[in-house]
Amino acid sequence: MNDGLTEITAYLHEHIPLTRHLGAIVSDYDQCSITLRAPLTPNLNHRNTAFGGSISALAILSGWALLHLQLRQLNFKARLVIQKSEVDFSAPITEDFEAVSYMPQAADCERSLKTLRRRRRARVNIHADVRSALAVGGQHVGTYVAEIL
Amino acid sequence: MNDGLTEITAYLHEHIPLTRHLGAIVSDYDQCSITLRAPLTPNLNHRNTAFGGSISALAILSGWALLHLQLRQLNFKARLVIQKSEVDFSAPITEDFEAVSYMPQAADCERSLKTLRRRRRARVNIHADVRSALAVGGQHVGTYVAEIL
Repeated sequence: MNDGLTEITAYLHEHIPLTRHLGAIVSDYDQCSITLRAPLTPNLNHRNTAFGGSISALAILSGWALLHLQLRQLNFKARLVIQKSEVDFSAPITEDFEAVSYMPQAADCERSLKTLRRRRRARVNIHADVRSALAVGGQHVGTYVAEIL
Repeated sequence: MNDGLTEITAYLHEHIPLTRHLGAIVSDYDQCSITLRAPLTPNLNHRNTAFGGSISALAILSGWALLHLQLRQLNFKARLVIQKSEVDFSAPITEDFEAVSYMPQAADCERSLKTLRRRRRARVNIHADVRSALAVGGQHVGTYVAEIL
């Protein structure tokens, strides 16, 4: 794991203690997407599959971390919060799993950045897949609001 | 806390380990609603308010627990899973908080029960408020699917 991934994982573990219990780690990040992994065992439910609450939490976190890193790279000091979260649980997850959040298309990004610069506040939708090696278990759409500090 | 509440709390803590880390307890239950409480401290985020993932998880859990108890009282042996979860985060939560899930209106309940008896499978939407003593912090709509075993 490179230094940047270790640093953002440590940040999450320090500031959002539940992420330690999820076992969440940031395993991959580039300009287009971020991947957060979690082991199955601490996230089991009564049916020995991944708990819906864990899937939601990891997905919410992945979108937040992606935008947090993008805003930091752009030298924005911004407050970033989730406003809405929608998860479709398409199949049970029976293994370690990951949430992969994707940046919106370039045109949407540009529009959000323009709004952020002009109004000091912008809203953006981030899509994520939650999947194991075997299957996609869920889709997440998170609406996040960034406010320049 | 009465014996029924202790029992369902223990069930959650045993079978869904993350609920222990959320500090979730079932604090109230009747035919119409259920209340699950969680302390703020283990659920903090980077802004010292309740983490969105914790709010989602507690809300998902509250709807599941309400339906689980209702189905048990009706002597249904059913598999109960969440299919969809939508959370609107309306305000930051800065205190200990609770998720209160409400049974649907009687006519909707009747319809779902008829479907469950006839097709051995039914879908139901459960609304929840997530709130602290100070404010409502979020609204959840969970779509749950029950399948008779």
